[in-house]
Amino acid sequence: MPTIDEIAKLSNVSKTTVSRVLNDHPYVSEEKRKRVLEVIEKLDYIPNTSARKLRSNKTMFLAVSVPHADHPFFAQLMKHMSAEALKHQYKVIVFQTFYQKQNELKVLELLKRKEVDGLMLCSLENEWEDIKKYVKYGPVVLANEFHAEADVPVICYDEFEAGYKGTELFIQKGHHLMAFCCDTIHSKAQIMRKEGFLKALSDAGLCFQEKWMFSHAFTIHDGFRIMDQIHNMSEKPTAIFTGNDQVAAGIIKRARYYQYEVPKQLAVLGYDNQSICEVTDPEITTIDIPVEELAQKAVCAMVNLLNGESGLQRDVVTLSPTLKIRQSV
Amino acid sequence: MPTIDEIAKLSNVSKTTVSRVLNDHPYVSEEKRKRVLEVIEKLDYIPNTSARKLRSNKTMFLAVSVPHADHPFFAQLMKHMSAEALKHQYKVIVFQTFYQKQNELKVLELLKRKEVDGLMLCSLENEWEDIKKYVKYGPVVLANEFHAEADVPVICYDEFEAGYKGTELFIQKGHHLMAFCCDTIHSKAQIMRKEGFLKALSDAGLCFQEKWMFSHAFTIHDGFRIMDQIHNMSEKPTAIFTGNDQVAAGIIKRARYYQYEVPKQLAVLGYDNQSICEVTDPEITTIDIPVEELAQKAVCAMVNLLNGESGLQRDVVTLSPTLKIRQSV
Repeated sequence: MPTIDEIAKLSNVSKTTVSRVLNDHPYVSEEKRKRVLEVIEKLDYIPNTSARKLRSNKTMFLAVSVPHADHPFFAQLMKHMSAEALKHQYKVIVFQTFYQKQNELKVLELLKRKEVDGLMLCSLENEWEDIKKYVKYGPVVLANEFHAEADVPVICYDEFEAGYKGTELFIQKGHHLMAFCCDTIHSKAQIMRKEGFLKALSDAGLCFQEKWMFSHAFTIHDGFRIMDQIHNMSEKPTAIFTGNDQVAAGIIKRARYYQYEVPKQLAVLGYDNQSICEVTDPEITTIDIPVEELAQKAVCAMVNLLNGESGLQRDVVTLSPTLKIRQSV
Repeated sequence: MPTIDEIAKLSNVSKTTVSRVLNDHPYVSEEKRKRVLEVIEKLDYIPNTSARKLRSNKTMFLAVSVPHADHPFFAQLMKHMSAEALKHQYKVIVFQTFYQKQNELKVLELLKRKEVDGLMLCSLENEWEDIKKYVKYGPVVLANEFHAEADVPVICYDEFEAGYKGTELFIQKGHHLMAFCCDTIHSKAQIMRKEGFLKALSDAGLCFQEKWMFSHAFTIHDGFRIMDQIHNMSEKPTAIFTGNDQVAAGIIKRARYYQYEVPKQLAVLGYDNQSICEVTDPEITTIDIPVEELAQKAVCAMVNLLNGESGLQRDVVTLSPTLKIRQSV
């Protein structure tokens, strides 16, 4: 393997210049950079990244933790985070928790062992107390997920507002009997969403019936299951806040199979504004989440932490969800 | 920072035992492992991963290259690859090409610079000639994508058979006028799929009309656009091989808007067997791709290469697609 000395000699520049070219440093003339790169190419020189990383104490890797990489919302978040991170020369490691506490601890270990420079948690499986212990090892950003005590940057959207706005729409359309779906009951973000839902109900003098609370609602198939359950109930809701477009699509499809009129007999509200909303019949009225902005702001917060431009402290950025009106409510 | 010597002393074991515990080596008694881990915890010892990686010359990272992380098929592939890799202690870096040649070269550079131990290419943007140069730097596996000259393990499914089987189904249903969609025209996998499509046509004495070839077909919105184009044609196809369930869903939705009867006036065949097939009306008849098996076999081939249990050479594993009959054909 050729050395930096040899490259410097052959390209007739200093070792510092070679090092600058290798590290994409801006203060090198185009002419010199070209010359150095030609010699590197000719000698087939490969910088030893592990050695470089050991010196710089940086890996240029960020871990992003999601429940499932193929859930449409998280896949979109991952896409935008990865694209944004790459603009800052960071590569993204996808880490799936599959909603398991011990998997989340594994990604926290990556931070502890300095295998990544930072960690973006897009969901939370463990109590904050257990996650907190790892914050001293490297920067953590909460993205999409919320926690009231997390003393790190939190980039989320207003789940309470989303819950309130969606429910208000049902009420405006004359619904009184409302069901609510969530995926994991312990998610703080979903608890806030439910609080918004309940507040809108109580502001309108309405009550929520616990029998119309459906959990583990992630997929189209969960939508089928929930609609089967509703169909078998003696007292049925007339509107359902699904928290997820996939679930909404499944409910609508199965409701039509049972010959319910949607939205007249059962109004269905989606969540996320995924493209599936446009192919169901009726099309899905949903809550539009600014996912690209969320991803960009989260990566930006992480890069600022890594560059020492901001301190690791609680800093909540809350984006606004909006209603996207189509046909299902 | 405490040293391995101190840990060995405090836990009353040899340095070798401490090193074995740190590296998850199996030949350590449970009792000793526990003792060492307690001391590590107490001293808050963190092994320096970069130093360890420099010694072992392994990063335990694999890069997976896909066009978009949020395309349902690639998201699913990513999910299964990441889960499978983790079983072998490898973490997956998601790398998106956005169908750009220069982005694919960036992921190849990761391999060259030893930032990852291996690379799984799930799509191909560059000519094999340009990719080939990088194979000497580390193991490359082609997964999902096919190339006739690639001298590396290739895990794919039989695209020719998929193209043939789908078209045969159209012909059995009495269709003569068939359209074909693809995403990128230069993908070798899609060229083979089209060859299967054309062979089934010619075996039935039918011709293909180039005006019914639609490219850049990835999303639901592309399905809308293609259906708009068909609707404006004076001579229309009666069947369309979409190559993608999202595109099929978009075409079906828009066809119904224009009051076409699906499948009577326009039969629509999906591809991938995504869950969206079950919510459209009519439901989508599609080609089922064994995506989990594909992911597992690709990771397995990579791990074998990394462990030196197989050589880097051409080795094509072809999985079989099957027809999933629903309502749209």
